[in-house]
Amino acid sequence: MKTYDTPCKLLLTEDEMPKAWYNVKADMANKPAPLANPATMQPVTAEELSHVFCDELVKQELDDTTPYIEIPEEVRRLYCLYRPSPLMRAYRLEEKLQTPARIFFKFEGNNTSGSHKLNSAIAQVYYAKKQGLKGVTTETGAGQWGTAVSMACAFFGLKCQVYMVKCSYEQKPYRREVMRTYGAEVTPSPSMNTEAGRRILAAHPDTIGSLGCAISEAVEAAVTTPDTRYILGSVLSQVLLHQSVIGLETQAALKKYGIKPDVIIGCAGGGSNLGGLLAPFMGEQLRGEAKYRFVAVEPAACPSFTKGEFKYDFCDTGRVCPLAKMYTLGSDFMPSAIHAGGLRYHGMNPTLSQLYHDGILEARTARQLDVFKAATLFARTEGILPAPESSHAIAAAIDEATRCREEGRAENIVFGLSGTGYFDMLAYSKFNDGQMVNDD
Amino acid sequence: MKTYDTPCKLLLTEDEMPKAWYNVKADMANKPAPLANPATMQPVTAEELSHVFCDELVKQELDDTTPYIEIPEEVRRLYCLYRPSPLMRAYRLEEKLQTPARIFFKFEGNNTSGSHKLNSAIAQVYYAKKQGLKGVTTETGAGQWGTAVSMACAFFGLKCQVYMVKCSYEQKPYRREVMRTYGAEVTPSPSMNTEAGRRILAAHPDTIGSLGCAISEAVEAAVTTPDTRYILGSVLSQVLLHQSVIGLETQAALKKYGIKPDVIIGCAGGGSNLGGLLAPFMGEQLRGEAKYRFVAVEPAACPSFTKGEFKYDFCDTGRVCPLAKMYTLGSDFMPSAIHAGGLRYHGMNPTLSQLYHDGILEARTARQLDVFKAATLFARTEGILPAPESSHAIAAAIDEATRCREEGRAENIVFGLSGTGYFDMLAYSKFNDGQMVNDD
Repeated sequence: MKTYDTPCKLLLTEDEMPKAWYNVKADMANKPAPLANPATMQPVTAEELSHVFCDELVKQELDDTTPYIEIPEEVRRLYCLYRPSPLMRAYRLEEKLQTPARIFFKFEGNNTSGSHKLNSAIAQVYYAKKQGLKGVTTETGAGQWGTAVSMACAFFGLKCQVYMVKCSYEQKPYRREVMRTYGAEVTPSPSMNTEAGRRILAAHPDTIGSLGCAISEAVEAAVTTPDTRYILGSVLSQVLLHQSVIGLETQAALKKYGIKPDVIIGCAGGGSNLGGLLAPFMGEQLRGEAKYRFVAVEPAACPSFTKGEFKYDFCDTGRVCPLAKMYTLGSDFMPSAIHAGGLRYHGMNPTLSQLYHDGILEARTARQLDVFKAATLFARTEGILPAPESSHAIAAAIDEATRCREEGRAENIVFGLSGTGYFDMLAYSKFNDGQMVNDD
Repeated sequence: MKTYDTPCKLLLTEDEMPKAWYNVKADMANKPAPLANPATMQPVTAEELSHVFCDELVKQELDDTTPYIEIPEEVRRLYCLYRPSPLMRAYRLEEKLQTPARIFFKFEGNNTSGSHKLNSAIAQVYYAKKQGLKGVTTETGAGQWGTAVSMACAFFGLKCQVYMVKCSYEQKPYRREVMRTYGAEVTPSPSMNTEAGRRILAAHPDTIGSLGCAISEAVEAAVTTPDTRYILGSVLSQVLLHQSVIGLETQAALKKYGIKPDVIIGCAGGGSNLGGLLAPFMGEQLRGEAKYRFVAVEPAACPSFTKGEFKYDFCDTGRVCPLAKMYTLGSDFMPSAIHAGGLRYHGMNPTLSQLYHDGILEARTARQLDVFKAATLFARTEGILPAPESSHAIAAAIDEATRCREEGRAENIVFGLSGTGYFDMLAYSKFNDGQMVNDD
């Protein structure tokens, strides 16, 4: 057995939890480009955004100068239900890989949403409540974001309308029931509830739905329902801000135990988990206080960073939302049916896009079969069944640890384990039966 | 908002984790009656048990004098992957109930098995490995125990054969895939692999299987496969011993924060979760050091304590295992189809049975519909989606907190939240649709 030179879990007390979110944009010399109005291509104004989003969230979205924004006490109390999340030492994985590297992972799956999504859902629903609103609308694909929003609405007593992509609604009835248990109204999309839905159904009566369509319905429902706004779980700046709690806790725990990371790894879909983990470490580097390697891992089948273009593009396939300057595969890009649904997004958060463009962030791809091999090795050594999305980060961490073994270097590797795979067993089943292939 | 006079989580560090299990039998004046050989009705001997169970576990099973048994270092290191488990303060539930009581719950669902079962699976597989065995067999119904054993076998590199009740195997393919992901071989029971299975299939070709049948197959597979033993997840003394880690952590955390519980509540199926939580507190009371109320909660549809008889009975419906003196509804008792599958056992651990017989433990029943109401209230306030089994304890805790409000008493209520409900959404679905009834 390897000598235990740190605890298995680098624990923080509740007193040591962050009291403010960190806004990495404040420390960037090259700020991300502003969101653009699709009609005029001019920067969107706060007034324009306030029809769709809560006022305080619009302010956060547009703020690129304030480095720290206080986490309201009510939000911190709800974070306490499942935070601080554990920063774990992967001793058994290290032993299995026979690497001199030390591997740490920040585990965000220990809450009923099964992922980091709850961090932003609680914040967004809090501001909706504070503004005196009665409800929020959102869309969900795989269901983790919808579950997180349902939970947050239950906490604050707000009405929750979730437009769930029809094929998921039918294939994942249990996800739907979790949301209903928290009191949400879940509608398969496209639906007859909205103009957008009716138009799509008229043209394609047998459609299985899409995230783009569900977004269009949720946005329409928000602007046509009194005292209601729309909320979104990734891509936006405000989401990165709320998710910085992941990185701030990681940073505090590593400092507490005197560990300086060499490389920090996250999986990349829209960027919420990656950006949240990296932000405070990026801040140190941008301020010249430290130097790290930052690694984004995306699916080979959906390579926004590594094969996309850096340009203004629509955030949604329905083209109703503002445009963002970002790495994108095109808003009509359709990835092949990889199982990491949360990473099947054509674009990338604009802040992370700018940091990648400026050479501060590395990016690489991982192939589906390699990802599930890494996931299975991780499950059998560390005991946690990881989400396919998060397993992209595991695969990269294993590659880095293997490099460390070959080079004889005892580096400190930190990766984000953003969620669990309980609702992804169909994909695991294919892998277990040897029916999964690399589809890139 | 209620004033926060304790943290949300009463945390222990890894150094404060228990280093020995506690054997409550050592402190009992009236010891539980010994297991009996079904052929002779004489107390079973270590030699007889050693054909089925590992030697060290047989020793633990029969030991009623040693109060503390060291937790081997390898077991403690694996406990560190998910322990200490959180002892949470249910502030938001207290507020909702407007009770002056303080409610604490020990949450055992933060591991991939989704329940406390892993505590004993790791210990049992460790001893199998230490004895030089190559594999273990077991049965599983709902799948939590089977998952826990699969995980433990992955950790120790042992072969794992799980006989899964056929209807669960077919209705819960995802549970089966979790076990396969950890490397287990999962067989629907009855199967053609065993004499017992073949006999049942010949008589009832269309049977959906039963736990009793799966036990018979797993035991037969253990005794006919070289270097293999059978392991069991509840009812036995050894399981209660390993599960005492739940109560020991709870006791240490409460002491650390200066809190003395008034009432301690657990759900009761075979007794593993209940006994594990209560044991060290029982010990204090049996030694005259403290006085508590202990409450067992069982389903109205399967009332072993409250309507059973205290007598020798078979532990399994197949009648191949030893008899135990316990509260039992009869080994051929078939409960109606309640959704808390983990509590559908006809008998009760003999130690808990003796303590109930001696008036030290109270017992009550909860009805299905009330249990799901309590589960939903708990999910919406505390954020965790509870297992139906565990929700029996929640229902009783709510009743106690309501009594405290009526009596104006600020008691400290502690209950065990033994697992999560991710794989029970069919039952929640019925409840959400208003199709669930009280079936007692």
